[in-house]
Formats: sequence, structure tokens, C-alpha cells
Amino acid sequence: MNAAEYPSWLDAAIAETDAAAERDALAHQSRLTKPPGALDRLEAVAVRLAAMQGRPRPRVDRVQIVVFAADHGLAAEGTSAFPQAVTGEMVKNFSAGGAAISVMARQLDAQLEVVNLGCINEPGELPGVVDRRLGAGTANAAREPALSTGQLAQALEAGRDAVARARQAGCELFIGGDMGIGNTASASALVCALLDLPAQAVTGPGTGLDADGVARKARIIQAALDLHRPQLNGPLETLRRLGGFEIAALAGAYLHCAQIGLPVLVDGFIASSAALVAVRLRPAVRQWLLFGHRSAEPGHRMLLDALDARPLLDLGLRLGEGSGAAAAVPLLRLACALHNEMATFAAAGVSEQVAD
Amino acid sequence: MNAAEYPSWLDAAIAETDAAAERDALAHQSRLTKPPGALDRLEAVAVRLAAMQGRPRPRVDRVQIVVFAADHGLAAEGTSAFPQAVTGEMVKNFSAGGAAISVMARQLDAQLEVVNLGCINEPGELPGVVDRRLGAGTANAAREPALSTGQLAQALEAGRDAVARARQAGCELFIGGDMGIGNTASASALVCALLDLPAQAVTGPGTGLDADGVARKARIIQAALDLHRPQLNGPLETLRRLGGFEIAALAGAYLHCAQIGLPVLVDGFIASSAALVAVRLRPAVRQWLLFGHRSAEPGHRMLLDALDARPLLDLGLRLGEGSGAAAAVPLLRLACALHNEMATFAAAGVSEQVAD
Repeated sequence: MNAAEYPSWLDAAIAETDAAAERDALAHQSRLTKPPGALDRLEAVAVRLAAMQGRPRPRVDRVQIVVFAADHGLAAEGTSAFPQAVTGEMVKNFSAGGAAISVMARQLDAQLEVVNLGCINEPGELPGVVDRRLGAGTANAAREPALSTGQLAQALEAGRDAVARARQAGCELFIGGDMGIGNTASASALVCALLDLPAQAVTGPGTGLDADGVARKARIIQAALDLHRPQLNGPLETLRRLGGFEIAALAGAYLHCAQIGLPVLVDGFIASSAALVAVRLRPAVRQWLLFGHRSAEPGHRMLLDALDARPLLDLGLRLGEGSGAAAAVPLLRLACALHNEMATFAAAGVSEQVAD
Repeated sequence: MNAAEYPSWLDAAIAETDAAAERDALAHQSRLTKPPGALDRLEAVAVRLAAMQGRPRPRVDRVQIVVFAADHGLAAEGTSAFPQAVTGEMVKNFSAGGAAISVMARQLDAQLEVVNLGCINEPGELPGVVDRRLGAGTANAAREPALSTGQLAQALEAGRDAVARARQAGCELFIGGDMGIGNTASASALVCALLDLPAQAVTGPGTGLDADGVARKARIIQAALDLHRPQLNGPLETLRRLGGFEIAALAGAYLHCAQIGLPVLVDGFIASSAALVAVRLRPAVRQWLLFGHRSAEPGHRMLLDALDARPLLDLGLRLGEGSGAAAAVPLLRLACALHNEMATFAAAGVSEQVAD
């Protein structure tokens, strides 16, 4: 990517978290009527949200979930258990309210938006679906770069713009989701390139391949890696050659959340691959990321290790759509409610811990 | 316990789960617009709730949380980091709405009831607190049986009656919680006796002992075990000698839930020790138990293994009060919403998985 094509907004400053709010929140936790540390990760996440939101009493009432949808040229090689028509069909299903993330958004009283970045089976104009189509899916990364430089810039911008809309609507927590048949293959290739791992170490069943299918998928990913390796100069070029429209949009979204200081709850494998790209571009992005769920996809463990991340949940989910992050939203809300509403030892007249 | 003193209601039949509703729910899951099994544990818990509730579309809108509070004579030996006065003080805090479980119940729109089984520092009459006092805490199990046979029968009944009230109020899911300074020591002794383990293998920090405190606690527990071992004939007598009022009430509650077919979401270490007593008394109780959270207390792992249980959450909580189970309630609700509201492949016009 030459200088003229480089999206200069990527270089804008990353917001800083609020150390004073964090100290206040931490001190407040020690005064609440419970043994010190007895709520462990619920305490820690409330304190981190306080630091991110710059207020000692954090809240995540207003949650925005944006699902980025796109098809993958690499899927033509046979990397998925589902036909590519499903990407567009699922965009319709999101819009109609029947998909898993549609149900979860309703249950959580969260806003759901879908951004269509380009499907093979185009769903057309639909309520709740933002049209940012960049083509009928990416090119086949087994033969050529998945995205052109122009498409990469536009996909990153589509993520940035979704975050800007979310902030405009008063969002307190951003969740990005993905829909794209074949995108575990694309994300796996990206992860292999960024973490210098062979395809076999990362490749998993995705939506449901059997052992033979996984072996074939690993060979296809390895071939794509071998083809592009001499040109994989940096995270953006790696993303362009091996990623997808929705993965690039997620990376742009995470980066912009960090720029404007909006906390992110990262979903599973695909979303985490985008988070790794964003963190490799700008390491300070990491402090704006919370992680919702450890995916059943085997490569997620390596991604989480690389990001030094410990998700709140481990429920065996492997769906995408933002569903793993959505499942963790009630824990964040409970953590905030406990932090904000529990009585202090002094106010409740409860005796504190004695010297041991 | 002789025949005249034995609470005969314990022998009433355990309800059977509904195999037809379970089959229907399982078949329904396979038609929903997601890869088969992609929601893993959320699918499984919806299907289990369908079987328990005898309806193919389960719901857990109405949740009852009952916290059983009592003091422990064994605490006089120095087994806790907090003074015994805290038990009564926390009963006041529950009633006033300032405790962790009070906040969580509000956040979950769940009903919260406290049953006072006897504290050293009596809180008196309070709103939302049911008076079932059996004495100023149990006797000191390091010297004599913790409960008399009469107290055991009354504590079990207090649990049964709380469940009967919950069912009367239309409860769809029962959570039992505990409050009692010193009760990890009592529960640890019970677990050691029932699982034939030495005190050292089970004893943990409870509300926050340091290493020396844990070692002292283990010696006290081992001494109590050694004192009572010749008389530990069966789970009820073990419960009477080593348990507590609130642990017995929890055991009675779980048993009665299984008798009337009310699903239980079991909390952490103390609650699971009561669940083990109930399951040892009547193995069929097990099918009515779901598990919310893996406690940080080390003995919980052994208890969960013995109960073949895999909790939904692992957040490092070690508070009791029912808080670990309460934290898992939103996952059950999400599981039910997904099960009940997602579109089917046929209805949404989404293509199904192709042969691999």
C-alpha cells in the first residue's frame, strides 16, 4: 500500500484510560460488604470499565452490536461445511430477527446493526442492514490477494463508520460480530501469518467440518500462506492478502473504538483475529478490549495467548455473529450493578475482616 | 436418628423429567439457523430445562433465590477471617438490599428471601427475612454433634418449606444461597466425610485466610472428623454431626425441589456440599440440579467431580449467598430465548449444511 492509498485516520491518537477513575473504583471495591476479592473477575471488570469510561461508577446499559457480513473467494476451494449462499441468506435472517444474534440483542435490549460488505448471493436492501458492498465477496486468496488496496481502505472505513454511528447513538459498549461462509479459513490464514504458525496448528472445524475436511482446509490455508509469504510486510498487507471484508471492517472498528475511547467486548475467533491485526497496528488498542468468550475453534487459544486475553465465558460456542460477546454482556451489567449498588461496610454496619 | 425422629417426607417420590419434551426440544434445536451444536452448552441447558419443566419451550423468567443464614459453633475454634457477628449483620444487609445477592436479585428481577436459622448476633424481625431460628448457631462440631436430631429435622423442613413457598409463587428456577461465618469449615468437614478425604486435601481460604490460617483450619476440621468418624453412619447423620443449619436447609430444599420437579441452579462450595448430601440420600435428585459456578474454594472441584457436574461459569467467585448461581441466570435465559425464538432453516429460507 503506497502513501497515497494509506488511510491516514489509522494514525490518529489512541485514547488513554482514566487512572483516577480506576483508583477510585478500586478503592470503592474494598469498602463493599464482601470479603476482599470475593467477586474476583466481576470486581476486575467493573474497575476496568471505570478506567475505560472515565467514571468511577461504570455502566453498560447501551450496547451496540454490529455484525459485518461478507463472502470469501477462498471458500470456492471447499473450506466450509455450508454453501456460500448462506452468507446472504443469513443477512436476511438477521434483518428479519430470526438469527441467534437477533434473539440475543432483543434479550439484552441491545441495538443490532448489520453491515453488508458484499455477498455472492446478494440479499438486496433490507431494514437494519447498512449497504457498504465492496464486491461479490473477496478474491480467492489461494490465487491472489483477497482484497485490493482500495477495498481494504473501504472495509476499514466501514468499521470506523459503524463505531462513529454507535458513539453518536450513546453506545457504552461496542460488540462486533461476523458473518461469512469460509471466514474461519481466512482468519486462520491471517493468524498463521501474524503468529508465524503452520496452518495445521491453527485450522479447526469452523461450522462443522469432519477430520478429512479440516485436513483439506489446512492444506488450502497453507497453500495461500506459501503463495503470499514473500509479500506479507506488516499487519495491513497481511490483512489485505489473507483476510476478508468483514475482518478488515472489524479491525477498523476496534481501532476507532480505541481512538474515541469506547470499550469493546471482543467476540470469538474471527473477531479476535481482527483484534490482533488492530493491536499489531497500534499496541495501545489492547487496553480498550475486553474478551467475552473462549471459542471452541482451536486457533482461538493461540490468538488469546498472543493478545494476553482471558475471556469471561467458555461455553463451547462456535457461531460467530458476536454471540460469544453478547452472552457475556449480562456479566458486565451485573459487575457494574454490584460495583454501583452494594452497601459499604460502614453504611451497612457490617464488621470488617479481622487480623488473621 | 431413630425411626420416630426421621422426617418421613424425605422418602417421598422424586419427580421424573419429561423424555418427550426433551426429544422435542432436541429435534427443535437441529432445525434452528445455526451450524449443529454451534451454541453447545446453551443448547444443552435449554434441552435439559425442557426435560425438567416438561415443556418443549422452557422459560426461567421467575427465579426464586433463598439465602439460608446461620452461625456455626465450630467457628469459635478460629476457622474464619471474619468475626461471627457478621452473619447477623449480613442478614440485616440482605434485608436492606445492600448485599451482593440483593443487588443481583434486583438486576435479575428475581425474588429474594432470607431464612434466618439462628445467628449469634440476632438481627431481630426484618422485612424479607423468614424466622426459623433453631438456636444461637450450631454446637461446636469439634466437641459434639453440630445439630441435635430435632434441629436437623427442623432445618431440613425449613428448606422444604422455602421451596414450597417458591413453587406457590410460580417459581421456574430455584437458587439456594448460604450465609454463615465459618461455614466453609463445616462444609469442608462434611465433604471430607462423604468423599473419604483428609482435611488437608479439601480445606481452603474461605473468606480470606492466609496460609497459616488455612493450616490451622485444616487441623480443626481433621480433629472434628476424627472425633465423629465412628458415628458417621450415612449422609443424614454425617450432616447432623458436621454440617450446619443452613447446609441442612439447603439439602432439604434441593430434595424437595426434586420431589416437586422444580429445576435447581446450584451455587458454589457450601451449596454443593448440601447437594451432595441430598444426592447421597436420593441419587435421583441429581437430575434436577444445574450448576452455576465453579468456586475458587479448592474443595469445590472435588465436590463437582463427585456430582459429575460442570458449572456454566468460572469467574473466581468465592462469596456464597447464591451469587455464583445468580451470575449464571442470564445464560439460562439467553439459552431459553435462543431455543424459543430463533428461526428455523425452513422458515428463514437458509440453506442447511452440505455433505462434507
